[in-house]
Amino acid sequence: MNELDLITRLTKSLPANDAVVVGAGDDCAVLDLGVPGRLLLFKTDAVVEGVHFTPDTPPEQIGHKALARCLSDIAAMAGTPTAALVTLALPLGFDPARIEAIYTGLNALARRHGVAIAGGETTTNPGGLLLSIALLGWVEAGRCVRRAGVEVGDALFVTGELGGSLAGKHLSFEPRLAEARWLAVHFLPHAMIDLSDGLASDLRHLLQAGREARGAELLARALPVSRAAKLAHREGRSPKPPVLAALTDGEDFELLFAVTSREAVLLQDAWRKQFPNLSLKCIGKVTTGTAVTIRDQHGSKSLPRHGYVHFADGAGG
Amino acid sequence: MNELDLITRLTKSLPANDAVVVGAGDDCAVLDLGVPGRLLLFKTDAVVEGVHFTPDTPPEQIGHKALARCLSDIAAMAGTPTAALVTLALPLGFDPARIEAIYTGLNALARRHGVAIAGGETTTNPGGLLLSIALLGWVEAGRCVRRAGVEVGDALFVTGELGGSLAGKHLSFEPRLAEARWLAVHFLPHAMIDLSDGLASDLRHLLQAGREARGAELLARALPVSRAAKLAHREGRSPKPPVLAALTDGEDFELLFAVTSREAVLLQDAWRKQFPNLSLKCIGKVTTGTAVTIRDQHGSKSLPRHGYVHFADGAGG
Repeated sequence: MNELDLITRLTKSLPANDAVVVGAGDDCAVLDLGVPGRLLLFKTDAVVEGVHFTPDTPPEQIGHKALARCLSDIAAMAGTPTAALVTLALPLGFDPARIEAIYTGLNALARRHGVAIAGGETTTNPGGLLLSIALLGWVEAGRCVRRAGVEVGDALFVTGELGGSLAGKHLSFEPRLAEARWLAVHFLPHAMIDLSDGLASDLRHLLQAGREARGAELLARALPVSRAAKLAHREGRSPKPPVLAALTDGEDFELLFAVTSREAVLLQDAWRKQFPNLSLKCIGKVTTGTAVTIRDQHGSKSLPRHGYVHFADGAGG
Repeated sequence: MNELDLITRLTKSLPANDAVVVGAGDDCAVLDLGVPGRLLLFKTDAVVEGVHFTPDTPPEQIGHKALARCLSDIAAMAGTPTAALVTLALPLGFDPARIEAIYTGLNALARRHGVAIAGGETTTNPGGLLLSIALLGWVEAGRCVRRAGVEVGDALFVTGELGGSLAGKHLSFEPRLAEARWLAVHFLPHAMIDLSDGLASDLRHLLQAGREARGAELLARALPVSRAAKLAHREGRSPKPPVLAALTDGEDFELLFAVTSREAVLLQDAWRKQFPNLSLKCIGKVTTGTAVTIRDQHGSKSLPRHGYVHFADGAGG
């Protein structure tokens, strides 16, 4: 049994109560605790040495990444973050200066977004450093954007550029909180998710979150391929063609969302005025059925579930 | 630098905001998020293989312990728990059946206390299994009991029995949620803490939480020494005299609290009727100064900060 199958089994029969509006399976848990007109967002995420960072990673960036990942999930539901707790699992013989530097990075990001660090816990972790963040946020009841909600014909948008994040962006990205708030206030997307696993995977999470699964048609030319992905391929550091990197690299922490097609042009114009330094690309549209296809100059091909291998064949051919 | 010194440094200048009523340093963080008349309680705690449990620990008890520790902290502030997230850091080659059994224990405890498991996160932890719980609860604004608040002359009470927890109780204890709620409604303690580090340590946390540190005078005869602590000593499994075990063993997860001395008798009577199966003992009183002393048939001696060595000498002599 792999991790995904295990999660599916574990989340099948979790204890629930009236406070839970959205449980496991979205970017954050959504709770109604009686704040008039507001829902609470609740998220945890951990980064682990050897998995999400290395012993060589600048410690300030470890702290930044740990909190930024959770902030990105609050952004994905158009929320505003409020307060976090930090669980620090320390290896034996840890270096206190390294831990202090981790907090320097974490605190700087927290201050920039008005997030309080309200405490936490330290424990011993014989295997290595692990940093887990628990984060609370809130969103107006009418502005909470979930993964579920795409409609056939919706235009699919992504912020920023995709691919090649491991060259550095995964440690220094800025969570798209202001952008998501603005979107929710002015265009209220039907559905939204932050890109952590890679566009090909996370697009499916979006399309399959509702009661009825949907498909999508992407335009290869419209994908905002990052300079980092192009460079990595050109310089031989990555075997992936850039478009494939943009589809599958993961850890982009950009927003993917769906709005009605008639709002697409209006949105593009308004976005350019509001966020002149961050690209917004319409990459395709939501379709009936459940297939995800991608069209390039050679025609249309399907993007299978674990599609990067398949697509790599095509793109490389 | 040890863990405690590090925590002191890290918590000195944490980012704050208007939502934080109580930050680092109490049993839970306390937040005001705008629920009329209510405060939010926010807590995280992690259990780690090789530290809090072993590869032989029945997995249901691992899950139970992980959640129960957090519930005990909600109890210590007289709160009601609402919803939890579970962060599961899995070693390579984990056994899915073990993880499912962990959830069985965790879910059973959650259901018993009406707590929703609203999701969580899994990640890889090369060093071994780590389970971190983030828990939300609430308390009426007027009934939140903090660590700070003891007054000179207050009677000090503990629930249950102390010492010898490692013989089994640390894996199966029931958090004192109902008892703490009842206390807050009927007697509103001046201060309260749950006993995780051991009475000698946690009493000092209570006495030193306020702006002005206080002392205490304990009666050795009044300490509710557990049968497990007595047996462990008698059978040679522990070198600690039972009273010393009750003072220093830790992981008791009972409540220690302070009420005015004139309420002490009234409380004892009401408690016996309400909780006939759980002992409540008045173990001493709050004094001026900052010294903590303990009196037995040979007289009064001081219980130094890292006092168990000293006291062991006396008790063993």
